[in-house]
Amino acid sequence: MDDTDPGKVKYINQNYLPFEFVVDTLESSDDVYHAISSMKLRGAPLIGAAAAFGIYLATLESAGHPDPDQYIIETAMKLLASRPTAINLSGTVNRQLQAVSQAITIEDKTNSTRRICKEILKEETESCYRIGQHGLTLIEKLPAKKKGEPINILTHCNAGWLACIDYGTATAPVYLAHEKGIPVHIWVDETRPRNQGGRLTAWELEQEGIPHTIIADNAGGHLMQHGQVDLVIVGSDRTTRRGDVANKIGTYLKALAAKENDVPFYVALPSSSIDFGIADGIHEIPIEERDADEIRYVNWKLNKIPLLNEKSPVLNIGFDVTPARFVTGLITERGICAASEKGIKTLFPEKYDQ
Amino acid sequence: MDDTDPGKVKYINQNYLPFEFVVDTLESSDDVYHAISSMKLRGAPLIGAAAAFGIYLATLESAGHPDPDQYIIETAMKLLASRPTAINLSGTVNRQLQAVSQAITIEDKTNSTRRICKEILKEETESCYRIGQHGLTLIEKLPAKKKGEPINILTHCNAGWLACIDYGTATAPVYLAHEKGIPVHIWVDETRPRNQGGRLTAWELEQEGIPHTIIADNAGGHLMQHGQVDLVIVGSDRTTRRGDVANKIGTYLKALAAKENDVPFYVALPSSSIDFGIADGIHEIPIEERDADEIRYVNWKLNKIPLLNEKSPVLNIGFDVTPARFVTGLITERGICAASEKGIKTLFPEKYDQ
Repeated sequence: MDDTDPGKVKYINQNYLPFEFVVDTLESSDDVYHAISSMKLRGAPLIGAAAAFGIYLATLESAGHPDPDQYIIETAMKLLASRPTAINLSGTVNRQLQAVSQAITIEDKTNSTRRICKEILKEETESCYRIGQHGLTLIEKLPAKKKGEPINILTHCNAGWLACIDYGTATAPVYLAHEKGIPVHIWVDETRPRNQGGRLTAWELEQEGIPHTIIADNAGGHLMQHGQVDLVIVGSDRTTRRGDVANKIGTYLKALAAKENDVPFYVALPSSSIDFGIADGIHEIPIEERDADEIRYVNWKLNKIPLLNEKSPVLNIGFDVTPARFVTGLITERGICAASEKGIKTLFPEKYDQ
Repeated sequence: MDDTDPGKVKYINQNYLPFEFVVDTLESSDDVYHAISSMKLRGAPLIGAAAAFGIYLATLESAGHPDPDQYIIETAMKLLASRPTAINLSGTVNRQLQAVSQAITIEDKTNSTRRICKEILKEETESCYRIGQHGLTLIEKLPAKKKGEPINILTHCNAGWLACIDYGTATAPVYLAHEKGIPVHIWVDETRPRNQGGRLTAWELEQEGIPHTIIADNAGGHLMQHGQVDLVIVGSDRTTRRGDVANKIGTYLKALAAKENDVPFYVALPSSSIDFGIADGIHEIPIEERDADEIRYVNWKLNKIPLLNEKSPVLNIGFDVTPARFVTGLITERGICAASEKGIKTLFPEKYDQ
């Protein structure tokens, strides 16, 4: 956020990474909508924070409208529809709408939503750091490796600092372990179709000097079968009160392989991505379907390069749900718990009393 | 095989599909080696047949060498090293070497290896057709769908006619079902990194007018979880005497998801790809590692388009092994059997008596 120009917010456009580092500016709620839906910015916590900025910008824009509140609500509806799976988006938008409804003047609405934006950034950053600390204890407790051998951690998609404001969720324990001198090596699923693993996670790890290897999404089962994965940590776009986890498509397959091969499978998530209102992830979490062209083509310079038989229909499912029974534990900002109602309730009792 | 020019063999160069249909010619055993190792031709049965041609061509070439037999054996060694996982390659090369050792003159060697090439083509074609017939009975026995709803079959990689001489293995039952008017719809895993599913299987199905949809490899678990897959059929590069199945990397993850979601998981294979000499697939089948650039780049016209952070190390594992307990059954040219020593022995008793 730019304190000298309160109508502008800068962000890293993730669609250019790792090939170019581009910082773009959001100057309107419409910019926010398009940045989220086109995945220029992505990752559950970041989407949540961006949507909060969208509402803040909408309060600025509302001054010119006959019914400012109506304009803000319409903007909120649009932002809520931009991506359906991550709960953070509705979490922060609803928080902002509550602030809007409690303020009287437009100036009050602007001030309170701006303050909440800053709170969200601070909260998410703190959550990531705490997730890192709790996850670090997990890494430290793993069976000792032979001298010089790193701990091999597999991750899917990008739940790093690009996605989660700072440190990241799934990557936070890795960064802290690395800082502490514990040798780690990360298996990075490329994560088709948008390759967030190969493009973003790998780039983040390279920036930090953390040893890593990109693999095809297909390879994780083989590596686990051959004892080459000590731990899986992934992020989450929405986790239910019972511990079912929606995350990037393909996560479920890795969870199955981890269970079969006795590899601990952890999900790192701030509580902002827990949906305490729903229980059954498979039937209750909306799963985003995206443009088939994300599978069909690779964008390169001004060309759309076909990867596939262009005459074939393509289905692009964005997320899947890993049932709680395949999740060894959840790493949250308040500690690690079992992926179950009982487990989550020990850390977040207040959320179950409502 | 060209009867007017016995030193030439024509084949479809799979590296251009589906964008261009290119028929190339093999004119030397060295051509055969490069076509196999660069995957211009691929698929276990086709690799086997091509290697047999390689030996036949080597007999022609051997005429100019001081020690013709030595030349043929060296060529055989080279061909055997071209791709390690598919057993068909060593099967056909050894069959040819036996013929070479039994013939006295170079002309005899050429005639007998040429005859064997034709036999192999005929055998593999017949095997595929019979696999199709047996697999068709399996499709016919599936629980009835609602009127108008197709049977949804998921396949991974390409075990179609491009890979298997004719009909294919995994696809043969699909072709026969379609011919018989049974509505089928195929989920085609794109099959990273080389996209044989999205490029070859989808193209084959399109040619035959069979409804299909390409999906990311990551999506199969989600589809099975939601009842959208009635049957999985894949091919195999090598199956052990106990029924462990090596196939394209990622097959194992689909088998885990099928087991978890009670989806029948069948492997279609001619007995030429059963390695009766080994039992434990995970520890005994050599797994090919291929060039990391297959994951890192997409070739397009004369450009190598990067998909990933180019500074990151990449590991490209070609195959994985699905343990027999995840395989519902094997569809062979002699019928369908359990994926177990007992099951395979009922169909191929002579192979266990040796």
